[in-house]
Amino acid sequence: MKIAVIHGPNLRLLGRREPEVYGSATLEEIDDALLELGEELGAAVEIFQSNSEGQLLDHVEELMDRVDGIVINPAAYTHTSVALRDGLAAAGLPFVEVHLSNTSARERFRKHSYLAPMAVGTVQGFGKESYLLGLRGLIAHLKRP
Amino acid sequence: MKIAVIHGPNLRLLGRREPEVYGSATLEEIDDALLELGEELGAAVEIFQSNSEGQLLDHVEELMDRVDGIVINPAAYTHTSVALRDGLAAAGLPFVEVHLSNTSARERFRKHSYLAPMAVGTVQGFGKESYLLGLRGLIAHLKRP
Amino acid sequence: MKIAVIHGPNLRLLGRREPEVYGSATLEEIDDALLELGEELGAAVEIFQSNSEGQLLDHVEELMDRVDGIVINPAAYTHTSVALRDGLAAAGLPFVEVHLSNTSARERFRKHSYLAPMAVGTVQGFGKESYLLGLRGLIAHLKRP
Amino acid sequence: MKIAVIHGPNLRLLGRREPEVYGSATLEEIDDALLELGEELGAAVEIFQSNSEGQLLDHVEELMDRVDGIVINPAAYTHTSVALRDGLAAAGLPFVEVHLSNTSARERFRKHSYLAPMAVGTVQGFGKESYLLGLRGLIAHLKRP
Amino acid sequence: MKIAVIHGPNLRLLGRREPEVYGSATLEEIDDALLELGEELGAAVEIFQSNSEGQLLDHVEELMDRVDGIVINPAAYTHTSVALRDGLAAAGLPFVEVHLSNTSARERFRKHSYLAPMAVGTVQGFGKESYLLGLRGLIAHLKRP
Amino acid sequence: MKIAVIHGPNLRLLGRREPEVYGSATLEEIDDALLELGEELGAAVEIFQSNSEGQLLDHVEELMDRVDGIVINPAAYTHTSVALRDGLAAAGLPFVEVHLSNTSARERFRKHSYLAPMAVGTVQGFGKESYLLGLRGLIAHLKRP
Amino acid sequence: MKIAVIHGPNLRLLGRREPEVYGSATLEEIDDALLELGEELGAAVEIFQSNSEGQLLDHVEELMDRVDGIVINPAAYTHTSVALRDGLAAAGLPFVEVHLSNTSARERFRKHSYLAPMAVGTVQGFGKESYLLGLRGLIAHLKRP
Amino acid sequence: MKIAVIHGPNLRLLGRREPEVYGSATLEEIDDALLELGEELGAAVEIFQSNSEGQLLDHVEELMDRVDGIVINPAAYTHTSVALRDGLAAAGLPFVEVHLSNTSARERFRKHSYLAPMAVGTVQGFGKESYLLGLRGLIAHLKRP
Amino acid sequence: MKIAVIHGPNLRLLGRREPEVYGSATLEEIDDALLELGEELGAAVEIFQSNSEGQLLDHVEELMDRVDGIVINPAAYTHTSVALRDGLAAAGLPFVEVHLSNTSARERFRKHSYLAPMAVGTVQGFGKESYLLGLRGLIAHLKRP
Amino acid sequence: MKIAVIHGPNLRLLGRREPEVYGSATLEEIDDALLELGEELGAAVEIFQSNSEGQLLDHVEELMDRVDGIVINPAAYTHTSVALRDGLAAAGLPFVEVHLSNTSARERFRKHSYLAPMAVGTVQGFGKESYLLGLRGLIAHLKRP
Amino acid sequence: MKIAVIHGPNLRLLGRREPEVYGSATLEEIDDALLELGEELGAAVEIFQSNSEGQLLDHVEELMDRVDGIVINPAAYTHTSVALRDGLAAAGLPFVEVHLSNTSARERFRKHSYLAPMAVGTVQGFGKESYLLGLRGLIAHLKRP
Amino acid sequence: MKIAVIHGPNLRLLGRREPEVYGSATLEEIDDALLELGEELGAAVEIFQSNSEGQLLDHVEELMDRVDGIVINPAAYTHTSVALRDGLAAAGLPFVEVHLSNTSARERFRKHSYLAPMAVGTVQGFGKESYLLGLRGLIAHLKRP
Repeated sequence: MKIAVIHGPNLRLLGRREPEVYGSATLEEIDDALLELGEELGAAVEIFQSNSEGQLLDHVEELMDRVDGIVINPAAYTHTSVALRDGLAAAGLPFVEVHLSNTSARERFRKHSYLAPMAVGTVQGFGKESYLLGLRGLIAHLKRP
Repeated sequence: MKIAVIHGPNLRLLGRREPEVYGSATLEEIDDALLELGEELGAAVEIFQSNSEGQLLDHVEELMDRVDGIVINPAAYTHTSVALRDGLAAAGLPFVEVHLSNTSARERFRKHSYLAPMAVGTVQGFGKESYLLGLRGLIAHLKRP
Repeated sequence: MKIAVIHGPNLRLLGRREPEVYGSATLEEIDDALLELGEELGAAVEIFQSNSEGQLLDHVEELMDRVDGIVINPAAYTHTSVALRDGLAAAGLPFVEVHLSNTSARERFRKHSYLAPMAVGTVQGFGKESYLLGLRGLIAHLKRP
Repeated sequence: MKIAVIHGPNLRLLGRREPEVYGSATLEEIDDALLELGEELGAAVEIFQSNSEGQLLDHVEELMDRVDGIVINPAAYTHTSVALRDGLAAAGLPFVEVHLSNTSARERFRKHSYLAPMAVGTVQGFGKESYLLGLRGLIAHLKRP
Repeated sequence: MKIAVIHGPNLRLLGRREPEVYGSATLEEIDDALLELGEELGAAVEIFQSNSEGQLLDHVEELMDRVDGIVINPAAYTHTSVALRDGLAAAGLPFVEVHLSNTSARERFRKHSYLAPMAVGTVQGFGKESYLLGLRGLIAHLKRP
Repeated sequence: MKIAVIHGPNLRLLGRREPEVYGSATLEEIDDALLELGEELGAAVEIFQSNSEGQLLDHVEELMDRVDGIVINPAAYTHTSVALRDGLAAAGLPFVEVHLSNTSARERFRKHSYLAPMAVGTVQGFGKESYLLGLRGLIAHLKRP
Repeated sequence: MKIAVIHGPNLRLLGRREPEVYGSATLEEIDDALLELGEELGAAVEIFQSNSEGQLLDHVEELMDRVDGIVINPAAYTHTSVALRDGLAAAGLPFVEVHLSNTSARERFRKHSYLAPMAVGTVQGFGKESYLLGLRGLIAHLKRP
Repeated sequence: MKIAVIHGPNLRLLGRREPEVYGSATLEEIDDALLELGEELGAAVEIFQSNSEGQLLDHVEELMDRVDGIVINPAAYTHTSVALRDGLAAAGLPFVEVHLSNTSARERFRKHSYLAPMAVGTVQGFGKESYLLGLRGLIAHLKRP
Repeated sequence: MKIAVIHGPNLRLLGRREPEVYGSATLEEIDDALLELGEELGAAVEIFQSNSEGQLLDHVEELMDRVDGIVINPAAYTHTSVALRDGLAAAGLPFVEVHLSNTSARERFRKHSYLAPMAVGTVQGFGKESYLLGLRGLIAHLKRP
Repeated sequence: MKIAVIHGPNLRLLGRREPEVYGSATLEEIDDALLELGEELGAAVEIFQSNSEGQLLDHVEELMDRVDGIVINPAAYTHTSVALRDGLAAAGLPFVEVHLSNTSARERFRKHSYLAPMAVGTVQGFGKESYLLGLRGLIAHLKRP
Repeated sequence: MKIAVIHGPNLRLLGRREPEVYGSATLEEIDDALLELGEELGAAVEIFQSNSEGQLLDHVEELMDRVDGIVINPAAYTHTSVALRDGLAAAGLPFVEVHLSNTSARERFRKHSYLAPMAVGTVQGFGKESYLLGLRGLIAHLKRP
Repeated sequence: MKIAVIHGPNLRLLGRREPEVYGSATLEEIDDALLELGEELGAAVEIFQSNSEGQLLDHVEELMDRVDGIVINPAAYTHTSVALRDGLAAAGLPFVEVHLSNTSARERFRKHSYLAPMAVGTVQGFGKESYLLGLRGLIAHLKRP
């Protein structure tokens, strides 16, 4: 089983950036925890980050024939990117949407996600743990008969 | 560590009720899995179900001094119950909101949750697994220093 | 053929309560007329009333394996109860929504029904007669090949 | 007692047109059933159909001094015709609005009726039976002291 | 100077129809007063009424090369007819919109007029007098250098 | 018969101010024409202008026992002054709302008038002539038996 | 004179629950103060609390023939319960709506009350004092000739 | 303790103006009752009325260093005056908003108050009594430790 | 292959009517070009125009068994006619919606089309060419295996 | 070159009033800085403040023939005064809108300005500096060929 | 004559991606057909695709002085990219917007196009044919005198 | 003191692009003026332009530890980029938003800025001068004790 993890825009600053909102874990710590959990659950995990909507689309396109599912934190593009929604729909891969913060407790415009209706499920509000729960959820979904 | 799980209205029918939406697991199967995972993670889990908003409020009130956190599937009351929001806020306990189905892929009125802004986090769309991920997430949150 | 009739909140006061809006028939008179018409049309009719959303849900759950269809006047819960909608959908029974008054001629918030999109049909505005027309309509629906 | 039945636009195609939405009864079958039920209930029934809003208005105007009430299926004009609302209000005759399909389960724009607030009551979702229930409801209304 | 007066739908019933809303003058009395005032002000007045949007459009088209301006009471079509707006714009004749009743004191949907933004001006609320003021206003407009 | 005319804010600049919107007549010319027409129709006309909402309210209060009706061009206060609406309602005098320009052909916020629902009627779009038509309309209204 | 006081959901926790929002008075202290003030003003006061919408409705129904008026703090049901509105309207008793906190300074959804338009008046924002002012206001209202 | 009472626009007409909405008490009677109650409760009360938003602002500015709190009936300015909101916020004095009528039972635009979110609390619907309850509420608030 | 072309209201004036919006081609020129292109592409083209919504519906009904598809310029009825939408759906023929002008660059109410969601496709903004492209598109659609 | 500076309502309290929102500079300090900068840039600056919308309008009217442009802080009237918009448009003078605070970071109703669309430009959020930047911007605009 | 064709995001997957929505033609087949039709109509066609909004903008900028017009399928950026709208407006080239699917029959957010109001015209719903019709339309537009 | 200036999408065309909207200054002229003013005010200014949202984010990330503040003209991304808002928030640098044109006088969608609530302040409508005023404003802000 192969799983791709995708980090959306502005996530390279994690740990330094507004820790009261996003927690103090760095992106590296999250990546390490994901690789470790993947190994534990028998899934090969590969990870990608980009600030560019276009590069994220290119990457999703490439993944299409290579992985079984995607865990994605679309960050700010959650609320604005129809292209990402269409790209994920085009790739036809099951994906899980995760967020570090509880977006429903923040600005009103963060309540809407273009991606969520196409997702298997969503996990949000648990900081770094959101990614791990999302990975577990996706693997459970893929293993369901 | 003590965790309460609360099932909202109409969940006794799980497994029989619209399996294409809610999955084929029964409430008993979910409860068993929760007790087992609780044990594994070192948390005592107690479980309650009611169709009545008032009884749910009474129950939350009682839990106030007895548990460390709540995993709640508020079901239909998610979208209509200011009282449940206020009751959970009054109890002052950290809680996680879970949903069997991916509510963002359903009717428009299911996109709004009165509870989510008060929650630690939310998990939805993974069927029975949503509860287990929610329990994991809550315990991770409670263990955070 | 077995038909359940359900009266929602505040209907015990019928006949005494705002007769210019709801007519002068009492709930007993309506029940008698329903039982009589049921007999005439060859259907066993049973009747239930509650002011409590939770009890209404419990009752719908119980009816699930016992009757062929439901005539329901959800009264005020028409406009606010996602739980009743979900409960009726879960029960999987055909149901007809009836109202004594013409709700489209009243306050704006009465124009929306959470239940109507799941119903076979709706009848409103004919006072006591709304129930009888609803019962006729449901039986005709159940007899359709 | 004299009752006029009015069929709005596009109803000549009934039975041929989208039977999954409107049922398989033809307009002739509906008319026959209405005449028969009228006779049974002691009311002379006359019937009119037009695709033209203007002709419908002309017809309502003519009926003004000739009948005791109207059963109308305004079809698409339900949602767009202020003129029909005003014409019926001007005629000052009690009328009942009927629909073959359950309009609340269809497109959003079908949830609004310009006519319903002026009606005695409405019946919808029972196919051909909607007309018959509407006729019964109107006659019951006219016989009420 | 030649002026056309156009009466929209449901106006043949004037005087009989809801006099508390529309006043007690009949359409004939209004027409007589218009012809008389036209004569007094040196304008030939011709008058047309139809319940049909299509016939109103046909008539406006015909007037195009024959008159200097139009006084129109579009009645219910005020709020729903983009076609009448387009027809009057196409004819390119200055027109005045008049209403017997004060539409801003009635239902919310009567506050919007598709025609008013294309009109020279509007007069409403003065009953029969609205037409006479509208005619005076149009003639004053046409005489302006 | 005594009629008060009230000019709202910014009207002292008439003739100088945006003539393509408001016409080239000055306030003096309008006042002269109103006095003359009043005389012709047998009504004593008095005129007041203020830029201040408070002074307009004080003035309406004073007029209460002195005149039979009011012609008012509320100008910008049309769209924002609940106080003027309440003041006119409190005075209990019939009033006519007039506008130089056709407000429905201008910015969206000019489509709403707080005063119009309380008015006898409104006249707009005829420039200086709007006042004269409004005065005629008010007098006709006052003379109606 | 007999007055019923009704406390809505989640109010048993008063004093313990979010004191910065609801103040530090307990429900017992409020009840004592109400009984005392009732005595002072010559009114017998009885008090009821429930978390259940259905029980609140049952209680209002019972009060119908027993008391002269109601002081109610509908708490969260203020914003969601059409049933409570209908129940109070059905009981036909004058009632006063009170709130401990200033609801207009809180979340947007707290600005709407289904009950307020049916009330004699409302008092909010004064903590425990809101109840006492509400009781005074109701008694003054009942004594008005 | 010094308390200022402020009456907003159109209140000089009280008692004469629409008594079915505002009651039959005159402003003088209200003022007398306020002075008397102030004396009884040990507070010096001073009173001001103006129809002008600007004068009301000037007055609030002056009060800033002279009184301990304000009871204000902003009347129509409730719904339109951001300036009054800002002026009261600038003065930094606790204030109570009162209304003679129950504004939530009137036009839709009266449901919004720019001032209420800045107020200690609000009282409405009790006629003259609203002022007295408001004064009591403010004094109780000021005496709270 | 047989194709019907339908021109909606106000199109007889083409070429004379607002050429800056609709271009300078007359309806006759458009019809000639359509017949010619039909011949070139091997399709028999028949053409109909009416200002009346009812006649357009009658015509669509008649076409039902006679043609393979429809090119329609619904003009103003695009935005207001649910009846035309329903008539075309009832006829069950593939149709293409065309507009002379670019409706998305005009008034806001022109952005909504009741017909477009039922159409094969739409073409707009190319003047006379819109019809020709629409005809090409429809024929290509009909030829698709 | 002559420039008028206008301060809107509640600005006399600057420095004392909510310094965390509006900064600690007093109105006198701002005025001094404006006069000094005017001198430096070769423009005569005159300054006016009023709490009254009417006086502000009177003042704008007077300025019409006397100055080359206006720097205005409309304060609360920004969001509510159509009259000020119309007055500035009538005066026909170029003007710059300035705000001490960053209004887009405050309440939702502060996001709308009636004046801004008529302005040369706007400057906000820089405290006292906003006026100085606004003055620079206006002078640069006036000097542009 | 030189025409640029621009394919927006996610279009490289055409033919593989959701063929029930977008048809079975690949991007290569579309490009071949465009080149062929261009040759037939005497226009040199060049083609560009990118998933990146920024690269699309760079490309439009480059085209500015090199081509006579653009056929663009903005795909998902249709609904979200103000930048593309501004880029096309800045380039000042006539352009035609095309879509493979009928966007008005899909999700609500696809009904709005930021580009369409700036376009010559739009073509949608014809699959691969949409591009060809768009190219024909653009060339016809460019040849118009 | 180090200041970064960022130009958003489509700004390379300045001077050539719609000069009636954006003025005739080229980007080079603006950059020269900024460098010169920076020198005059004692601040080192560095400048960056990109059409790509992703590159703008990358650049903001890099600036984080290198400059004291940012002057940004986000152009079209103002209205659509949550990512830019989040990137600037993450960088934690004070920034000023500038616009060449007065965006409040343009299309409705330009009235909303995702960035403005996070900014120190905004300057718009002064053409090239907007940048210079923004730079002055930022430096004044940074120098404030």
